[in-house]
Amino acid sequence: MTQKTDDEIFVGNKPPMSYVLAIITAFSGDLKKVTLKARGQAITTAVDVTEITRHRFIKGLKVTKIMINTVEMPPREGETRSRMVSAIEITLSKE
Amino acid sequence: MTQKTDDEIFVGNKPPMSYVLAIITAFSGDLKKVTLKARGQAITTAVDVTEITRHRFIKGLKVTKIMINTVEMPPREGETRSRMVSAIEITLSKE
Repeated sequence: MTQKTDDEIFVGNKPPMSYVLAIITAFSGDLKKVTLKARGQAITTAVDVTEITRHRFIKGLKVTKIMINTVEMPPREGETRSRMVSAIEITLSKE
Repeated sequence: MTQKTDDEIFVGNKPPMSYVLAIITAFSGDLKKVTLKARGQAITTAVDVTEITRHRFIKGLKVTKIMINTVEMPPREGETRSRMVSAIEITLSKE
C-alpha cells in the first residue's frame, strides 16, 4: 500500500480561515504537497489563504506552482448556456 | 537610447475589457512582455483579463510567470492601522 503524499483543497466562499485550517491539518500528517483549487471570485480567497498560511502558520511552506485556466460551468437555473469561468491552482509544498 | 521592451499594467475595478484593450495596445507596439499587477478583489479580474486576452485576442500569448505576495496598504479613512492585502503579478510574453 502506498501512502498518499499530496491532496487537493477546493476553495469556495467560506471564510479564509476554514481553508487555512484544512491546509494545516493536511500538512500535520504525512503530506508534502497540497494543491488549492478555486474558481471565479474565490480566486482572491485562494491567494489570501496561501499568504495567511505561509506567513502566519507554516514556516518553510513554499508556493511551488501557480496555474491559471478557464473552466466551463453548467448553466445556472433559468439560463440556457454554460459559462466560462477563470480558475487558479496553487501548489504548496513543505520542505 | 534603448527601446522599452516591457511594461506594467495595474488592474483595478474597471471592466475587464479595459485592461484587455490596454494589453492589446501594449503588444501592438514593440513590447515583448507585459506584467499585470492587481491587489485584493482585483486579483480575480487580472486572471479573467489574462484568460480573455490569450483565448480570444492574442494568439501565442504565454503566461510566463505568476507571483503572489502580500502588500501593506495605508489605513483607510477613519482607520488607524495599515492593512495587509494579497497581490498577484502575472507576466505575459509574446513569442
